[in-house]
Amino acid sequence: MTRKIPDSTVRRLSHYLRSLEGFQEPGGTVSSEELAARGQTTAAQVRKDLSHFGSFGKRGLGYRVDELRAHLRSILGIDRRWRVALVGAGRIGLALFEYPAFRARGYDCVAIFDPDPEKVGTVRAGLVVHDPSGFEDAVRDLGIELVILAVPEGAAQEMAGRAVEAGVKGILNFAPIRLNVPPLVPVEDVNLVMELEALSFAITQAGHEE
Amino acid sequence: MTRKIPDSTVRRLSHYLRSLEGFQEPGGTVSSEELAARGQTTAAQVRKDLSHFGSFGKRGLGYRVDELRAHLRSILGIDRRWRVALVGAGRIGLALFEYPAFRARGYDCVAIFDPDPEKVGTVRAGLVVHDPSGFEDAVRDLGIELVILAVPEGAAQEMAGRAVEAGVKGILNFAPIRLNVPPLVPVEDVNLVMELEALSFAITQAGHEE
Repeated sequence: MTRKIPDSTVRRLSHYLRSLEGFQEPGGTVSSEELAARGQTTAAQVRKDLSHFGSFGKRGLGYRVDELRAHLRSILGIDRRWRVALVGAGRIGLALFEYPAFRARGYDCVAIFDPDPEKVGTVRAGLVVHDPSGFEDAVRDLGIELVILAVPEGAAQEMAGRAVEAGVKGILNFAPIRLNVPPLVPVEDVNLVMELEALSFAITQAGHEE
Repeated sequence: MTRKIPDSTVRRLSHYLRSLEGFQEPGGTVSSEELAARGQTTAAQVRKDLSHFGSFGKRGLGYRVDELRAHLRSILGIDRRWRVALVGAGRIGLALFEYPAFRARGYDCVAIFDPDPEKVGTVRAGLVVHDPSGFEDAVRDLGIELVILAVPEGAAQEMAGRAVEAGVKGILNFAPIRLNVPPLVPVEDVNLVMELEALSFAITQAGHEE
C-alpha cells in the first residue's frame, strides 16, 4: 500500500469496530448509515474509509457484521496479539496496563521497567518492575514489540533510541517531546496537557468569533 | 475568526510554546528554523502555523522569545486559569489531577465526582470525592468550566449532557464513545486503546508494503 491513510480514518475504523462489537446478532447485516450514526459521521464517510482497504458489503444489502468485524480487526492489526512493555512505572502507564480493555484488545503486558530503586523488584500490575539496564535483553528474550514510554521528558529520547536499536516496532509516547526515531518505527504521542490546551484553544477562539 | 484551524496546527502551537519555555534567555530571539528543529517540523510550517494568528517576528531577525511565548499563551487560551472538575475518580483521571504540569499550565482542579459509595467522602488528589447528584450545583457554585470525563462507556453520554446543560464549556473525554454534544462545546477524545490500534495499524500496513 503506497497511500498514506490519515490518522482520522484510522480512528474512525476503531470506532466502527467498536460499534460492530456491540451488535447482538453477528450473523446479521449493518448499513453504512447505521455505522455512521453510531460513529457521529456520514454514510459517505464510512464507505470512503472502508474503500481504502478493498470492497466490502453489497450495494443495498449493507455489510455482514461478522465479516466486516474480522476485516477491521485484520486492517487494524489486532487479529493477533502484541507483546507490550511499559517503560516508566508511573500512574498513567500502570493504569493502562491494568485496564481490562487493553488486554481484551490483544495487547499483552509482558514487562515493566523503571530506574527508581524503590520500585525495582516490587510488583505492579502483576509484573515485577525491572531496572532499565536489562531492557535490551528483555526485548529479545520476551519478544517485546511495542513500548509504552511513560518516562520524564529528559529520559524519553534516550529510551526511545534504545527501544528502536533493540528492535521494538512501535512506541506509544507519553513524554511531552517529539521523539526522533526512524520513519519505519511509528510513534503515537499522548499528551494530556496538550489535549486540554486544544480545548481551551477551541473555547477561546469561539469566544473571539462572537 | 471564521477559518477552522486544524487540530495538528494546535498541537504544534503547544509544541512551540513548550520549546520557547525551555529558552534560558527570554529576552533573546529565536528563528523559525530553531523552532522547527525542536518540533520535528519545517521552518515554513512554523511560519504558516503562526500566520493564522497575525504577524509575528521580523524577517531576518526571528521572533522575540518572550513576545512569542505570550502570544502563544494567549492563542491557546492559557493566559488565564481554568476551573476543572474530574467526573469519575479512576486511576487515569486522578493521575492527571495529580500531574504537576497540569496545574502549572493553568488548570485548577476544583472538584471530583464519582458515584461509587466507597469513594464518596474520601480524599483523592487533595479533594473530597462527591456523588454526582451534586454536580450541577457545583458547576454553578465553583464556576467549573472544563470537565474531565473518565466514567464507564454507559454513563458517559448522560454525564456529558448534564455537563453541557449545567454550562460547562469543554469536555476532555476518556470514555470510548463519541459524545453527542452541541458544536459550541468542544470535546477532545482520549482513547488509549485506539492509540495502540493506530500503532498496530501502522506496523501492519508497513509490513504489507514490503
